[in-house]
Amino acid sequence: MLSDIEIAQKNVMEPISKIADKVGILPEELEQYGHYKAKISLDVLKRLEKKPDGKLVLVTAITPTPAGEGKSTTSIGLAQALNRVGKKAVVALREPSLGPVFGIKGGAAGGGYAQVVPMDDINLHFTGDMHAITAANNLLSAMIDNHIHHGNELRLDARQITWRRVMDMNDRALRNVVVGLGGKVCGFPRQDAFTITVASEIMAILCLAKDLEDLKARFGRIVIGCDLDGNPVHVHQLGCEGAMAMLMKDAIKPNLVQTLEHTPAIIHGGPFANIAHGCNSLLATKMALKLGDIAITEAGFGADLGAEKFMDIKCHYGNLYPDAVVLVATIRALKMHGGVAKADLSQENVQAVSDGFSNLAKQVENMRTFGLPVLVAINKFATDTPAEIDMLLQKCASYGVEVSLNECWEKGGEGGIDMANKLVAMLEEQKPQKVELYDVNDTIPNKLKAIVTKIYGGDGVTFTPNAKKQIKQLEDWGLDKLPVCVAKTQYSLSDNPALLGAPKGFKINVQDVRVSNGAGFIVCQTSNIMVMPGLPKKPAALKMDIDNNGKIYGLF
Amino acid sequence: MLSDIEIAQKNVMEPISKIADKVGILPEELEQYGHYKAKISLDVLKRLEKKPDGKLVLVTAITPTPAGEGKSTTSIGLAQALNRVGKKAVVALREPSLGPVFGIKGGAAGGGYAQVVPMDDINLHFTGDMHAITAANNLLSAMIDNHIHHGNELRLDARQITWRRVMDMNDRALRNVVVGLGGKVCGFPRQDAFTITVASEIMAILCLAKDLEDLKARFGRIVIGCDLDGNPVHVHQLGCEGAMAMLMKDAIKPNLVQTLEHTPAIIHGGPFANIAHGCNSLLATKMALKLGDIAITEAGFGADLGAEKFMDIKCHYGNLYPDAVVLVATIRALKMHGGVAKADLSQENVQAVSDGFSNLAKQVENMRTFGLPVLVAINKFATDTPAEIDMLLQKCASYGVEVSLNECWEKGGEGGIDMANKLVAMLEEQKPQKVELYDVNDTIPNKLKAIVTKIYGGDGVTFTPNAKKQIKQLEDWGLDKLPVCVAKTQYSLSDNPALLGAPKGFKINVQDVRVSNGAGFIVCQTSNIMVMPGLPKKPAALKMDIDNNGKIYGLF
Repeated sequence: MLSDIEIAQKNVMEPISKIADKVGILPEELEQYGHYKAKISLDVLKRLEKKPDGKLVLVTAITPTPAGEGKSTTSIGLAQALNRVGKKAVVALREPSLGPVFGIKGGAAGGGYAQVVPMDDINLHFTGDMHAITAANNLLSAMIDNHIHHGNELRLDARQITWRRVMDMNDRALRNVVVGLGGKVCGFPRQDAFTITVASEIMAILCLAKDLEDLKARFGRIVIGCDLDGNPVHVHQLGCEGAMAMLMKDAIKPNLVQTLEHTPAIIHGGPFANIAHGCNSLLATKMALKLGDIAITEAGFGADLGAEKFMDIKCHYGNLYPDAVVLVATIRALKMHGGVAKADLSQENVQAVSDGFSNLAKQVENMRTFGLPVLVAINKFATDTPAEIDMLLQKCASYGVEVSLNECWEKGGEGGIDMANKLVAMLEEQKPQKVELYDVNDTIPNKLKAIVTKIYGGDGVTFTPNAKKQIKQLEDWGLDKLPVCVAKTQYSLSDNPALLGAPKGFKINVQDVRVSNGAGFIVCQTSNIMVMPGLPKKPAALKMDIDNNGKIYGLF
Repeated sequence: MLSDIEIAQKNVMEPISKIADKVGILPEELEQYGHYKAKISLDVLKRLEKKPDGKLVLVTAITPTPAGEGKSTTSIGLAQALNRVGKKAVVALREPSLGPVFGIKGGAAGGGYAQVVPMDDINLHFTGDMHAITAANNLLSAMIDNHIHHGNELRLDARQITWRRVMDMNDRALRNVVVGLGGKVCGFPRQDAFTITVASEIMAILCLAKDLEDLKARFGRIVIGCDLDGNPVHVHQLGCEGAMAMLMKDAIKPNLVQTLEHTPAIIHGGPFANIAHGCNSLLATKMALKLGDIAITEAGFGADLGAEKFMDIKCHYGNLYPDAVVLVATIRALKMHGGVAKADLSQENVQAVSDGFSNLAKQVENMRTFGLPVLVAINKFATDTPAEIDMLLQKCASYGVEVSLNECWEKGGEGGIDMANKLVAMLEEQKPQKVELYDVNDTIPNKLKAIVTKIYGGDGVTFTPNAKKQIKQLEDWGLDKLPVCVAKTQYSLSDNPALLGAPKGFKINVQDVRVSNGAGFIVCQTSNIMVMPGLPKKPAALKMDIDNNGKIYGLF
């Protein structure tokens, strides 16, 4: 089979105006960025305010292998397949970060015959959203240091500034820096850090904001650190939330592109799935619901993290609820959960599929805890054997969950017809039962306990002395009545990546608790999350090139 | 009169496709960024290769006051006026930097009734060129530190890395930083600095590159520092010039916007006018020459810096030569050169206009040294009195230089009809006589001496011991056979801002000599040039705001 970039470059795209027209976006609501990308005006949401929403389908996954289960590929393939069976489906996805492209990661735009295009643009600067976030984030940093330099009226404690600069680059040298050197005209020296842009709270805010006004209000609520009396300092005290929102005036508009089969795809926002909630923007999802009969969207990592945050953070703020869940699984990952070593995953092992099913069953159970109908989608790999697939189908049947074999990667929408038909039937026959996992006004430990016991399958939570102190501080500040956002390994239902399958009898240990007050959640870390990646010894950048006609090489 | 932003917001723009159509850009050569901005494909240059170029007019100025003489306003007004007198004129301008917008500077898109629009977009992210430059620059920085971290095969001397990170922000805290802290996994600590993006050599390269291939080759030639043996290290040794060029695939395309009177304006690139050459991109100028009968372009600062670099750097690499020069002067600046204090500039002082004429006369002489016909354009201010204007007209007449009173700021193109007619007559009647100020293969001191004696009116050049050592190093490396780019004060023909008028009997003192080998020039600094601005005590950002409909406040 051809490589992703070869498939994408062979594909003949439709003009983006035609894609927009298909879903009833008016010409004046579309701002083109070249011939194949566009921003959609938020006026669409106002114009269609009274139009009933389409059905919302969340694509999530079992606990993944490091290669990922293929949620984006499945989401794109499913949208393509739904259009083939006569449904107007629109897919909403996260936009990729630029920095990792130069490392080892490659692009993030689906794969095989289930891709969004133009994949090179989507993976490079796209429509500039990441750059706008970088600018808004770093304007705030400059305003903080400038405030201290010019007299420090707010009495900011330079030792306790938690707001960090960002760059959309994999650059380990920026993980820990000292700024403000050079004497009096260069400000006061202090320690700072750069995170990668997608880890900025600005990104999380973009993805939860309802409109420009809400975006600006959230910027104003960001806590940037403490003053010398230990009180939290908010951005509105510095007074630059208006300028920050101005920098985001275009970035707030969702981006329209297309799949290889010309299905409309809205790609907008992409916060980290650990220290943030890992979903595309609320505005993109709302737009997909207005423009399509069925809106397909995804959430990062496995369902214990991604789907839980989708429900408890995104749906909480967005007044949304999914109508069904598609749970992506691979035979490879099931075998891993069944105890097979990474090097042996390509060999047939029917028993391991059966043994590893425990993880899938637990994730299905979790989705049912939220009252959601579930369709399991097997993302088929060339190495999967008929016996292994049969075993998985049997296990699903005996467990009592609908399942479909998804061959979209190899065959495009055609490979997802069965999945599409089963999903359509499910949407017609079943209704979600709305469930609140916890009360946001409960204590931080109680909210965490609800997630651990109801979703992870564990017994409870322990806290380091540092985390206890941080919780006390948030309680003192009155900033603890928010959803919690757990940052833990994505490779286990527990906080220990070695515990595969469906572990029991464990507790998670919270080491660090911080508020993202603008985004509106409390980040609880079970380990130190890397928020600035590095480049490998032989970075992908070394094989990238462009010729004089603008043709790109080595991007994927 | 209304403010700039009020005038701009009241203006009804034409769709950018219509502006493009006027100058014969084909629909497939235009990539729209929203309704009023577009990128122009470089294919235009290939298609029109055989079409004769239009006339090239350089707009420059006398030695300015800190408020500037109004080169952009004059360039825009002149283009508007030329179209009113039936000429197809296209104006090519520099694009503004984002960072300074939040300080005290305000926008850079002309003023009054001679502006380019949409001014808010042009001053914010525009089409993302600055962000692409930032990314390409910082990818190189990450690759340098990554190379050192992973074994340092090239034996880079971490103490002698001259390549710096950039950010498009006024942020004094980043002027001097220590990066790489945090222990083994975070690389080797070293001192670094951030400059503002427009000061990056990447920007200078963008503005001199002929096409993507030339851009990439220039990136490859950048010297990033030395190895432990003292040899220069080039980007091609690191191998990331292809990835850097890939990041610039859209940024290399000139941007099309319009003036308030719907005249096509190509805005592309904006390097510093001190440590770089201060002109919009060569590609933008070449495109204006293909698309218009007359192409108007500008160069930063006064003619001693901007026009000299335009001729000796941009024209040298671009195989261009202007057909005429418009030299902008204000009565205010002439009075300043005549000895009037800043606070008294609004009061009539006819004698000071006469006394200050020496600066104008010297700058006219300089342009004639280059064999160029000169038209003086008086940029009229409300405080100018009839007697002062009369004095200037008389002085021009007796000196023997054509002069026109330019009221474009107040009246738009209508205020520049006389200027346009005089320019058209000059272009028909006079031809430039090509002159080479110096031989690029001469020594650095000799090239500098030619500039000082022939243009600045001084006697020669002195060098600090450090500068002498740097020159010796460049000679040893064989990297001294390039044009020189002087970084000195723009407020005097000398390197002393206190010497107004047309000083004589001075030498300039060069303190620092570095090669911008990718751009292709040697930067000779007479003082320490600030390449990362700071924010003032009350930054403009504090009054900026945006409402829920996206309307911007406080940007200008």
